[in-house]
Amino acid sequence: MKPFNIAIVGCGTVGGGAAKIITEINESLTSRSGRLINLSKIVELNPPVAIERFGLPGKLFCGGGKVITPQEAGKYIDEILNDPSIHLVVETVGGTSNFVHDLCVNICKSGKHLVSANKALLAERGQEIFNTAEKSNVSIGFEAAVCGAIPIIKTIKESFTGDEIISVSGILNGTSNYILSRMLDEDLGFGQALKLAQEAGYAEADPTLDISGGDAAHKLIILMKLVFGIDVTMEQLKFQGIQNISADDMEYAKEIDAAFKLICYAKRDGDKVYGTVCPMMVKNDNFLSGVKGATNAVRTINRYSGKHILIGAGAGSLETASSIVADIMFIARYSDKIKNTQLSNKLEFKGLSHFTFPFVITFTTEDRPGITGLVTTEIGKQDVNIYTVSHNRHIKDGAVFSVETQPCTLKQINAAIKEIKASGILKTEPKIYPILF
Amino acid sequence: MKPFNIAIVGCGTVGGGAAKIITEINESLTSRSGRLINLSKIVELNPPVAIERFGLPGKLFCGGGKVITPQEAGKYIDEILNDPSIHLVVETVGGTSNFVHDLCVNICKSGKHLVSANKALLAERGQEIFNTAEKSNVSIGFEAAVCGAIPIIKTIKESFTGDEIISVSGILNGTSNYILSRMLDEDLGFGQALKLAQEAGYAEADPTLDISGGDAAHKLIILMKLVFGIDVTMEQLKFQGIQNISADDMEYAKEIDAAFKLICYAKRDGDKVYGTVCPMMVKNDNFLSGVKGATNAVRTINRYSGKHILIGAGAGSLETASSIVADIMFIARYSDKIKNTQLSNKLEFKGLSHFTFPFVITFTTEDRPGITGLVTTEIGKQDVNIYTVSHNRHIKDGAVFSVETQPCTLKQINAAIKEIKASGILKTEPKIYPILF
Repeated sequence: MKPFNIAIVGCGTVGGGAAKIITEINESLTSRSGRLINLSKIVELNPPVAIERFGLPGKLFCGGGKVITPQEAGKYIDEILNDPSIHLVVETVGGTSNFVHDLCVNICKSGKHLVSANKALLAERGQEIFNTAEKSNVSIGFEAAVCGAIPIIKTIKESFTGDEIISVSGILNGTSNYILSRMLDEDLGFGQALKLAQEAGYAEADPTLDISGGDAAHKLIILMKLVFGIDVTMEQLKFQGIQNISADDMEYAKEIDAAFKLICYAKRDGDKVYGTVCPMMVKNDNFLSGVKGATNAVRTINRYSGKHILIGAGAGSLETASSIVADIMFIARYSDKIKNTQLSNKLEFKGLSHFTFPFVITFTTEDRPGITGLVTTEIGKQDVNIYTVSHNRHIKDGAVFSVETQPCTLKQINAAIKEIKASGILKTEPKIYPILF
Repeated sequence: MKPFNIAIVGCGTVGGGAAKIITEINESLTSRSGRLINLSKIVELNPPVAIERFGLPGKLFCGGGKVITPQEAGKYIDEILNDPSIHLVVETVGGTSNFVHDLCVNICKSGKHLVSANKALLAERGQEIFNTAEKSNVSIGFEAAVCGAIPIIKTIKESFTGDEIISVSGILNGTSNYILSRMLDEDLGFGQALKLAQEAGYAEADPTLDISGGDAAHKLIILMKLVFGIDVTMEQLKFQGIQNISADDMEYAKEIDAAFKLICYAKRDGDKVYGTVCPMMVKNDNFLSGVKGATNAVRTINRYSGKHILIGAGAGSLETASSIVADIMFIARYSDKIKNTQLSNKLEFKGLSHFTFPFVITFTTEDRPGITGLVTTEIGKQDVNIYTVSHNRHIKDGAVFSVETQPCTLKQINAAIKEIKASGILKTEPKIYPILF
């Protein structure tokens, strides 16, 4: 049986998990793929930690299992890139540094397949890597980069091929979802819930990338490239996080039979692709509203086969590693037949302000007669139909109420808000959230 | 570009849908697969109906689009089997007749790939077909045979390859789920809900195969073959339908925060595979309990990546057809690399009576003091822990109550019931349902 030789660079949470799976179920991997799946080498600065955590043999590590310097690691990587017997390199270093960028480019350049879980790198600096893979005729596996264990990448590339995807949306950041779930279930404020998420290990000490929507944006950028063939930058994709969701917002979502979720959403309409990452009020009869904790979920709506939902673990060592190993298996079996993602020149990207969506707008105003009339009249003047006005709360010196609209654009809403502001009745900036059915 | 030539035999609901998709998005199929996807020929007894329903050109049909006799159809099929330019044949005739069995065997024998949506045939008489495909080195695509549009077959074969599936369960029959959903939401009896399902087109005039669990059993047999590599017959897999679920049963499910679902369930434990199809009370925090109407859902629990759920359309013309076309695409791209499903000799199948599961047992007894003590004492004697006893309803001349057990086997429960029966207090046969968490 022909061997398929693998090297792993970076043996932390995900890389180590992959090494563990490959060694632990090697026989069944080999029998399923028809190739001798062989983990040849691991490059890692601190092997003792990985050996202890994942129960790996020291001899797999370049340097024999001892701590090595970055210079030594660089030398071992060069050896791997120049070793014609290595077929595939797993990059699980992480980050968007020049070092990791150049590593991925060089893996492809050396004619080796690349498997990576690095969503930030592929979303922000992926272009040269994908181009090099295309030129060198090698495959890039990145199942682990989007939603950990959920096989959404292969489902799109290999299962929805007899169909056309119209929209893709989902809960792609487990940390945010964990925080929102605890806020909802236990009536906590954002700060309290974040603290609990950090204590439970679901949020980093610096949680910015997760709660700002940045991590979710990376994943949506990769999905939009795959589904619609367009390259969207982080600047174009105006993303918004969950930091400003208040207990009052949560309360109102409950009232309209919805739950707050940090939603990634992209939809094709003719030659345009609309995409955004922002908190939405997701109606309870949409499965996404029931996805709790750190779980991820992706929904696609397809032209012929309608609605699909995939739910699974969005993170975790072995969970994400299983996707890495699945990519290795697929490349081992089909490498010379795999087509890389094609870019399309036909489609144009549009941000949230161009969407047509139903929205909830929450106003904090003076508390006196005539205010509701003034606000709803201005909204009506912009040709926006109001679905319902509700949740009047009288606070100290003011009132809070929410308006649910029929589908309209943010442009229309902003025009109405401009007029309302001019009247001087607003006490704070209105909050605007889309509603997802 | 090398063409990939396809023939379709049987142009009804699913075959016609596949023909429509292939003609309608041909350009994008061709660009995605790197082969010229070419629908060469369709064999159908009554082309005018298919032409009208799916907007297909008459010239695609053998005989030019006119009604043909079965003899003529046989002649056209022989021509296709002898035509070296045809790469793949789609069988969408349906049924388990000798005709369709031999057709599938002959397609494989002639060296052509086979794509089929025929779950009954593959589950009941698939062996010779799979063996012939293996010998002739051709692929069988059967994504459309299990859960219509849900890509569960390819997910198992190509995405969960870096992992080991421990259990697979799901709602695999849309008709039963539609009936149960209406019973639950509108407090209807089984008969009323069945009638509504027939009126809405979700149940056949003769609904036996759907409501008896037979159709779901076909799908579970195919999944068990794929996941565990074992061949299970319909006789071995004792399946049970939804006909005997009463309004009282539904009521009790609600009380314990559960919903009745017709569940297919298979689980590997060491060298044994436990499998069954029967109504279960599914706890509301299991996603399957929220799957409503004719939708299907599959849940797997994997060794490394944990729980996965796929939800989507379980039936429908274009929905199921999209899975047929996805199979065509996969075979067009990867045909010489695809490995057919391997049988394992290592695993032994066990039916429901060997499972360890929590159960609900509902007793209808005489209405007098001491009965609850007698029943629960007998259950305790079999070493079964009781979780709760509840829902006492006093009916004319009797009482109804339910006992929820901790995990135990049906054998233990049946032993207890034997003793309880001997005491003469039972008015009817107890009802026993597993609980799915």
